[in-house]
Amino acid sequence: MDLHVLLDAGRKRGSLEDALRDAVRDGVLAPGVRLPATRSLAVDLGISRNGVAEVYARLVGEGWLDARVGAGTWVRERPSPTPMAPADRSTRFDLDLRGGLPDGSAFPRSAWLDAMRRALADAPTEALGYGAPEGVAALRERLAEYLARTRGVLATPDDVIVTHGFGGLLGLVARALVARGGTRIALESHGHASHRAVLEAAGLELVALPIDDHGARVDLLDAGMPPVDAVLLTPAHQFPTGVPLSRERRVGLAAWATSTDGLVIEDDYDGEFRFDGRSIGAFQPLAPDRTVYGGTTSKALSPALGLGWGVVPRWLRGDLLAERARTGSATDALSQLALAAFLGSGGYDRSVRALRLRYRARRERFEAFVEANLPDARVVGLAAGIQCLLELPPGIAEEAVVAEAAALGLRIGGIAEYAVDPAATPRPPALVVGIGAPPDHRFDQAMAVVLAAVEAARVSR
Amino acid sequence: MDLHVLLDAGRKRGSLEDALRDAVRDGVLAPGVRLPATRSLAVDLGISRNGVAEVYARLVGEGWLDARVGAGTWVRERPSPTPMAPADRSTRFDLDLRGGLPDGSAFPRSAWLDAMRRALADAPTEALGYGAPEGVAALRERLAEYLARTRGVLATPDDVIVTHGFGGLLGLVARALVARGGTRIALESHGHASHRAVLEAAGLELVALPIDDHGARVDLLDAGMPPVDAVLLTPAHQFPTGVPLSRERRVGLAAWATSTDGLVIEDDYDGEFRFDGRSIGAFQPLAPDRTVYGGTTSKALSPALGLGWGVVPRWLRGDLLAERARTGSATDALSQLALAAFLGSGGYDRSVRALRLRYRARRERFEAFVEANLPDARVVGLAAGIQCLLELPPGIAEEAVVAEAAALGLRIGGIAEYAVDPAATPRPPALVVGIGAPPDHRFDQAMAVVLAAVEAARVSR
Repeated sequence: MDLHVLLDAGRKRGSLEDALRDAVRDGVLAPGVRLPATRSLAVDLGISRNGVAEVYARLVGEGWLDARVGAGTWVRERPSPTPMAPADRSTRFDLDLRGGLPDGSAFPRSAWLDAMRRALADAPTEALGYGAPEGVAALRERLAEYLARTRGVLATPDDVIVTHGFGGLLGLVARALVARGGTRIALESHGHASHRAVLEAAGLELVALPIDDHGARVDLLDAGMPPVDAVLLTPAHQFPTGVPLSRERRVGLAAWATSTDGLVIEDDYDGEFRFDGRSIGAFQPLAPDRTVYGGTTSKALSPALGLGWGVVPRWLRGDLLAERARTGSATDALSQLALAAFLGSGGYDRSVRALRLRYRARRERFEAFVEANLPDARVVGLAAGIQCLLELPPGIAEEAVVAEAAALGLRIGGIAEYAVDPAATPRPPALVVGIGAPPDHRFDQAMAVVLAAVEAARVSR
Repeated sequence: MDLHVLLDAGRKRGSLEDALRDAVRDGVLAPGVRLPATRSLAVDLGISRNGVAEVYARLVGEGWLDARVGAGTWVRERPSPTPMAPADRSTRFDLDLRGGLPDGSAFPRSAWLDAMRRALADAPTEALGYGAPEGVAALRERLAEYLARTRGVLATPDDVIVTHGFGGLLGLVARALVARGGTRIALESHGHASHRAVLEAAGLELVALPIDDHGARVDLLDAGMPPVDAVLLTPAHQFPTGVPLSRERRVGLAAWATSTDGLVIEDDYDGEFRFDGRSIGAFQPLAPDRTVYGGTTSKALSPALGLGWGVVPRWLRGDLLAERARTGSATDALSQLALAAFLGSGGYDRSVRALRLRYRARRERFEAFVEANLPDARVVGLAAGIQCLLELPPGIAEEAVVAEAAALGLRIGGIAEYAVDPAATPRPPALVVGIGAPPDHRFDQAMAVVLAAVEAARVSR
């Protein structure tokens, strides 16, 4: 097609500039193609020569075209780097039931957009500059109110710092502990491998606490264990075994922290999702000066926001902000402002309530499904949160079920995969079932695949 | 006011639930206040007793109320933590002309909201889960295209990683270098103190390169200096002196990197903002396998997005992603999707073009202002970017001008404040003038205060 005709046709749909840019971007005009002289194109299109020259200059400025005096204007040549070899994708999973994953299809997209709209409308100009390392004041105010109300956390806005998720908070605390001479941290025998990696990268030695029916054995901290500087715990709903930390253990933990100047890191990852109406508050108010309380938007809203927070003791606050500066990582004030607006409008409360109903219904369906179809298996764990344990029928190995499930396109983990050291703290064979992960319309299918995997493992025993 | 009357009036404006929640939140119902029995309130309001009981239960679930069987329902008591003592704010600045600050009032709020709307409309469910550590694929594709086009960077989407700003990238690179046995890094004698803090925190020793009219003295790298593992540079427009790295120095730097397996970290913080139409491309294509190219949204859009990126050599990519996992910091997929949509729609190009015009006009106004009012001072630095140097009239100390400016409510820095070691690399007394920082309607005022501060320092000499 003649270039003049092409540009004239494109121009009738919009501007010459857009037509030319689109033609280059879409490859209609290949690199190296020479453009008509400004005078000739101006005559053909019936516009001024200056107008054409300005368009050319702007597109040179944007990098679409190249020009040299005396040599004219052409589509810019771009050297093309070699693409990477595609990564080896061994297994493609169609369904995901790993623990700790929320249902992305539940994200309140339009309500979040409203919150962003309000944040953008209300933000003062200063808020669009470089943000404060502790986070946006409006968000810290809302969080202090929300956490006090829903979790009983003791916090003023000054006690809150906003972080890149719980992992980001954990990294700051771990490095601050080491900078103060800390060497050893206790944690639950089962949990997130990614948290252990963050602690070890900071230089801390890990000590695993067994878990029983009263939660993690924090009573062992005083009893002959090597002394630790801190404890990382999920008191509301142990991840992933589902046991809450008992009242007695909580009181003992507070006493340990106070008497040894130890630090408790409370990962309240799903404290809002208790289904039996008996909310167990946060541990933090029992020892606010010895606790870092951490939470995120990842379960109640979405991990895609990348937002977390800590309520931190005042003696530690400066250390954490200094560690943050040392990592160099920027703050995302705009997302923080949107979350503040979302909390302020009650959108967050509504989102939590809707998800609580959704996840409770799933938990009940899963329990009924197991009772009806796998009477020799057992669902374990508090009626809360977005995962539970499925203790397998006697004699069936969890690795076998995990492998059968993978062959069926379902990604799921056994409890041993979450262990610091599976040999040191063995548990009955079980799957960690993330009931929160699949979208609603795939949940029945996901349960059916779990059943099929267990039965396949039973047969091939 | 009688509680029944209050709730009835509130209910007429919305639901009983909202009326009750508002009354508790706003303190109209104080902590400890007992609510009417469900039966009595139901009769008074003419609604079902079950309806009232459900509202109470929901508000107990949200933490506004407390209830115990047999004891009724009351507004929840919340212990109030002690607020922090207010920080000592020594000086309140009304105007800010520090180097490197963009004009927040130029942020395209409605265009960004549109991008967020498209991102939310188009995002598949998986995109709202936990994100990949290298960043969202759609954004990496757009960035590879954009950086190739506007800066000549050699990149496939696989070469791009998304980070928490340039500082976040720098932290990852510094720690990866140390993990590989690196010990020493060279950098320009003047730059961001925050970057130096990140490098030192990773354990690197800093070596300062003097700056002359051809840019940083990278020719010294081969000439008797202690050997370094890497160099951090701002080749397009040295921050904050404004000198570009000459062609000859670039070629020499590429030769150094290739022959010594050294790494060049290119901070292309404002490469898009050249006012004379002669874009100087990125350094990266001269030695793509030995360069980490870094950029951010902070100058062209806003630091409040907290987004940055690196184009990284393949041998280093895995190390950087592993370092990222070790910091624990979460990814912000939603902001990344919005930026991808913004780049895809041409919004980013438009924003850069508008800002380039705005900053060019300011630079010209500032130069004209200095020529007219401070003929014995001199504006130095390439016609580019959002800051320049104002070399002061002979005999005037920059500290004196900075102090006078502070007294007038203007925050501005002298060139010595940016130095690694002011004594080792002295420069003529100068202010670093961030012409980008103030909103348009305050720019004249800001210039007038600079003039007043210089004249006050001249008089008090």
